[in-house]
Amino acid sequence: MKKWLVSVAIAASFGVHADEGMWQPHQLPAMADELKAKGLEIDAKSISKLTEFPMNAVISLGGCTASFVSPKGLAVTNHHCAYGSIQYNSTPEKNLLKEGFLAKSFAEELPATPGSRIFVTEAVTDVTAKVKAGEMEKTGNDFYKGIENKEKELVAECEKEPGFRCQVYSFHGGLEYYLVKQMEIRDVRLVYNPAASVGKYGGDIDNWMWPRHTGDFSFYRAYVGKNGKPADFSKDNVPYEPKSFLKVSAKGVSDGDFVMVTGYPGSTNRYRTASEVKNQFEWAYPEGKMLRERYIDIIKETAKDGSDERIKYESLIAGLANYAKNFTSMIEFYGKSTMLADRQKIETELAKWIAKDEQRQQQYGSTLAKLDELVAKGQQKQERDILLGYIGYTTMITTARDLYRLAHEKTLADAAREPGFQERDMTNFKSSMERIDRRYAASVDKAVLLDLLSRYAVLPAEKRIAALDTVFGIEANFSKDKLAKTLDAMYANTQLGVQATRLSWMDKSVADFKASNDPFIKMAVALFDSDMAREQEKKQLEGDLMKVRPQYMDAIIAYNRELGKPVYADANFSLRVSVGHVKGYSPQDGLKAVPFTRLEGILAKDTGMDPFDAPQKQLDLIKAKQYGDFYVKSLDSVPVNFLSTLDTTGGNSGSPTLNGRAELVGLLFDGVYESIIGDWSYNDSNNRSIQIDSRYMLWVMKYLDNADNLLAEMEIVH
Amino acid sequence: MKKWLVSVAIAASFGVHADEGMWQPHQLPAMADELKAKGLEIDAKSISKLTEFPMNAVISLGGCTASFVSPKGLAVTNHHCAYGSIQYNSTPEKNLLKEGFLAKSFAEELPATPGSRIFVTEAVTDVTAKVKAGEMEKTGNDFYKGIENKEKELVAECEKEPGFRCQVYSFHGGLEYYLVKQMEIRDVRLVYNPAASVGKYGGDIDNWMWPRHTGDFSFYRAYVGKNGKPADFSKDNVPYEPKSFLKVSAKGVSDGDFVMVTGYPGSTNRYRTASEVKNQFEWAYPEGKMLRERYIDIIKETAKDGSDERIKYESLIAGLANYAKNFTSMIEFYGKSTMLADRQKIETELAKWIAKDEQRQQQYGSTLAKLDELVAKGQQKQERDILLGYIGYTTMITTARDLYRLAHEKTLADAAREPGFQERDMTNFKSSMERIDRRYAASVDKAVLLDLLSRYAVLPAEKRIAALDTVFGIEANFSKDKLAKTLDAMYANTQLGVQATRLSWMDKSVADFKASNDPFIKMAVALFDSDMAREQEKKQLEGDLMKVRPQYMDAIIAYNRELGKPVYADANFSLRVSVGHVKGYSPQDGLKAVPFTRLEGILAKDTGMDPFDAPQKQLDLIKAKQYGDFYVKSLDSVPVNFLSTLDTTGGNSGSPTLNGRAELVGLLFDGVYESIIGDWSYNDSNNRSIQIDSRYMLWVMKYLDNADNLLAEMEIVH
Repeated sequence: MKKWLVSVAIAASFGVHADEGMWQPHQLPAMADELKAKGLEIDAKSISKLTEFPMNAVISLGGCTASFVSPKGLAVTNHHCAYGSIQYNSTPEKNLLKEGFLAKSFAEELPATPGSRIFVTEAVTDVTAKVKAGEMEKTGNDFYKGIENKEKELVAECEKEPGFRCQVYSFHGGLEYYLVKQMEIRDVRLVYNPAASVGKYGGDIDNWMWPRHTGDFSFYRAYVGKNGKPADFSKDNVPYEPKSFLKVSAKGVSDGDFVMVTGYPGSTNRYRTASEVKNQFEWAYPEGKMLRERYIDIIKETAKDGSDERIKYESLIAGLANYAKNFTSMIEFYGKSTMLADRQKIETELAKWIAKDEQRQQQYGSTLAKLDELVAKGQQKQERDILLGYIGYTTMITTARDLYRLAHEKTLADAAREPGFQERDMTNFKSSMERIDRRYAASVDKAVLLDLLSRYAVLPAEKRIAALDTVFGIEANFSKDKLAKTLDAMYANTQLGVQATRLSWMDKSVADFKASNDPFIKMAVALFDSDMAREQEKKQLEGDLMKVRPQYMDAIIAYNRELGKPVYADANFSLRVSVGHVKGYSPQDGLKAVPFTRLEGILAKDTGMDPFDAPQKQLDLIKAKQYGDFYVKSLDSVPVNFLSTLDTTGGNSGSPTLNGRAELVGLLFDGVYESIIGDWSYNDSNNRSIQIDSRYMLWVMKYLDNADNLLAEMEIVH
Repeated sequence: MKKWLVSVAIAASFGVHADEGMWQPHQLPAMADELKAKGLEIDAKSISKLTEFPMNAVISLGGCTASFVSPKGLAVTNHHCAYGSIQYNSTPEKNLLKEGFLAKSFAEELPATPGSRIFVTEAVTDVTAKVKAGEMEKTGNDFYKGIENKEKELVAECEKEPGFRCQVYSFHGGLEYYLVKQMEIRDVRLVYNPAASVGKYGGDIDNWMWPRHTGDFSFYRAYVGKNGKPADFSKDNVPYEPKSFLKVSAKGVSDGDFVMVTGYPGSTNRYRTASEVKNQFEWAYPEGKMLRERYIDIIKETAKDGSDERIKYESLIAGLANYAKNFTSMIEFYGKSTMLADRQKIETELAKWIAKDEQRQQQYGSTLAKLDELVAKGQQKQERDILLGYIGYTTMITTARDLYRLAHEKTLADAAREPGFQERDMTNFKSSMERIDRRYAASVDKAVLLDLLSRYAVLPAEKRIAALDTVFGIEANFSKDKLAKTLDAMYANTQLGVQATRLSWMDKSVADFKASNDPFIKMAVALFDSDMAREQEKKQLEGDLMKVRPQYMDAIIAYNRELGKPVYADANFSLRVSVGHVKGYSPQDGLKAVPFTRLEGILAKDTGMDPFDAPQKQLDLIKAKQYGDFYVKSLDSVPVNFLSTLDTTGGNSGSPTLNGRAELVGLLFDGVYESIIGDWSYNDSNNRSIQIDSRYMLWVMKYLDNADNLLAEMEIVH
């Protein structure tokens, strides 16, 4: 959206071109001239071919990105992306997180945490016509289900070939559909990680912050069977030989240099309407922030610091706090931005352009109004829905509902089941039932639920849910004390806190559930019809949106086509390419963030206490100015992290940042605080991604960790 | 000390010259070439003459600095220096702090807060010989008293002329003494202050911070009797006509420009020995920080937020917190610095230099050892003394002791009394007794005292004070409960909480005190002999230090003289000149503080809530880019605050910052966080003073507050 604003307003008046856009590879050849002008040295066409260098070296870990950096399947990603595997292999005697880990030979490499995968994209096929065929006459829930079934069929067909995982991605809210086929490598091994005091240096304090000094990198290796096909872990497996791999640059980049990043960004909202923006920033984020902060407070009040209960909730607290901080940033920068006015202006311009032509008038004349009507419909009961959403974070209610839903879904053929309840999902489902032991305390669950239900209970009756009211005894004259007693009784009598009981419910029938006296099972049964009706209602709306939003995007794309401007789709975890430059920014009037940090910054930050507790050897090397091969004269040091204008978001973590020759010059691992709102609107002046500099990675490998075997295995460009 | 390090190490190797030094004006002519090279355009000699331009335009407010900026006694200083007067003239109906104030004519000017003074330095005379004559054979307490008497005599003689206030300042720890004679203007009036939302913009949050956007300026006017002599406030008084005044620059300064500041810096410790540094940073600051934070906690626990008691303590909390933050910074930057090693190196170099020459050997050979021995002696009971120091912040104990001391001092001739208890001090003494009503709550005083005495009680017996132990019933098996009961009884029965009672004790005799049953009066009587003995002990040590420290400074000065380097004395509230440049710095690796902030920074910081609540008119002016006459092209805005390398400290507040032609280009009002440790060691790379830019001051006056009458009165240089 902002891109388009650039076209009509800024670009026209100043002639600048923002480094905005998460491009689908196939879009790049059409932008070849612009990419060349920016600094791309290789052929733009080569980036569009997923099965050729460099794109086939870029791989997904599912949630993170990685890249092959040797002919023997060595893959580099972020330390925080390999964190689970490092933790999994750590013991009190040999703490790999604390001490770091380096396999000196293939034999010493350790299995990654169970379930770890490396996905190598094999093909991306436009399946728009197939998905939509015969569906376009349907509306609402029928349309939603119709599209979902088409996607399931395509996935099932594609996954017939063993060793592959397939998924249909929707672009522009349903304007286009692409089937992505990825080889699923199941034997992934941990090869090397620096100590957490390097790889996670700065920890949560520095999260989203600049200046940054984090050595956020680690190495995996992909293994396959002797036949070259994906296989479960086995001693007999052999390193996977990728079709290509990235060279690692020891020369790095300088201020102003061209860079690009290839990876799997998760989710952005660049094309939302003004009314969606207004509601999100003026209602949803403030409300969400308040609820998250309250949720954290209740956990802390209920489970005292250091107690077993508290330990179980630390990870949830971290997650809640992380997005409370995210929302705080969103609200702050929205208040300082002209985002809403910009969107309104764009909508006005678009409306004028549509009005100018009769055919356009017919095609798009009522689109925005329809879209806004659907959006408003979705917001009608949002005070209730946000509370139900946070109730979804509690354990007992969600567990009972999921188990009962499973019993229902199991009565259907596998293909007809709701996603999440198919056979392919059962491993995950079971794990989530097991995990509860380590993440649940009845006292906390009850206290949070009491707070959320008390907020729910004071909503007007027409916004409440009759079945829910009945279950919890919520009436016109709501009494919190009475509700507390109801919950006390439910938590005292439920058996769902016991893992074996939960797992046993996975195999029970609907009738078994109906016969149960467990208060939470009874609740799930009592709520089921109403839950299903709301899901239906939601899918009805979702289906309608899936028809209107593509129209809206179509209008935007047509408008930009006239201006000769391509439009990129919102991020959706599919493979994208962003291009930009190494560049600092001004975080505040009177301050400048320079694009590189230096080794000396580690000395300055170090307190000797986590998260600023670099290894003594590293501090000594820096004090002695042992810059070695990676000294940069203009910095009089070795660069540690650098800033770029690259347009990225969550999911890009671990992505290789490449120079114009597609050599790896860094690994993307974060964005600056001012970039958080970038998910909604890219801002040239302060949207910045943070990379670990390849020179720092090599410096750590060579001088701190003596990873000579890996340095020898990689192709390093001087 | 650092200066000297510069001479031997840095200057020698790199040839740079730091902008360090708070120079006595008489030292400047000898530095004329260097000053000229730096950018001084007027004759260095002119800055050395206190009764000529520009030095006679620089005045003291007692704790702050100001300067005359018109021929009619108009004086500009910081908003925070005029704060008391603005508050004093505010009423709920007409809140000058909130709304700002501008007198449109002389008649509208308001009396400053009672006791406000403007001091115009008339003469500074070297009285070293007079002070020391006949005293140098004495030692310890005799020497201390001898010097004190000489000072009293000189002051009494000097103050015989009505309308003058005199003081003897010791330099280099007693190496030199200067008598300063100042005209004491007693009729001071408030002329103009911007709203606090301009003058205190950023408040405590931005205190000691960059980037800064504070309009920290206000205007006073000096009035005298029709005869031109100082007089009490009267309608018939006339504006004082200073011998000269500063022109105000509308052109301002640019990055790298020469600047100098003239003012009254309070206190620095640049020449302390390594052992003093170690003790201060490794023991005294951490201990002081802990005690301050504990003190604040107790106040907050005892006096709930919003209570009357809490309101009485807000100002003490602010003071305690201010220095807790100061100490935190000291500790942090000491940890990052090489200060201790630098001092040790300096001492080694000095020792080598002394050892090279027999006469020097004789003169200074044992000086440092003697000094360190005295310093160690002073630290012997410091665990106790720091607690006694903080007990001094409590009210009842201190009040009773002061009143009883007064009764004793009154038995002596006025000239023989302890400073603070002479007739010239009685106005202040009485005010302090009256002020207690607004700053004392028995519950808080008792709780703090209980905590401090409980810490004291667990010290080894040989570090405790027998008389104090007796009064509070402190024994080997200390019981906090028992002490609490003792204090309960004392606070329940004392009458010193009543103002009239306190004031009545000011006139009573020693015998009256001895006959009293008031528990705190009884305590003061019981402690008196021991208090006096400790004071005697302290003066004995102080007297010895006053003989040895000058020797040490003499050695340092002699050493530097050989290198052709002048040495400046530690700050002591006397008039000084610092010279430097407009310059940014790097607060952290990866960040640069640029030397100017801009109007737009106010928009960006503004939240609409105190302390970021600029007046709507100001926000509108900025949004409309109404830069007017003060637009600076390179900033594309009006500069608000700027950074300089000027060497300053507390007391410099309000000082005029001058360009090479001695035109006022800013008002100094703060230093950056990294500068706090600068009181101990000036660091070229991050010691920065913060000034309000004259262009911002003029912009606020012209466009925001329409202070046209004052703009017309001043001489503005374009």
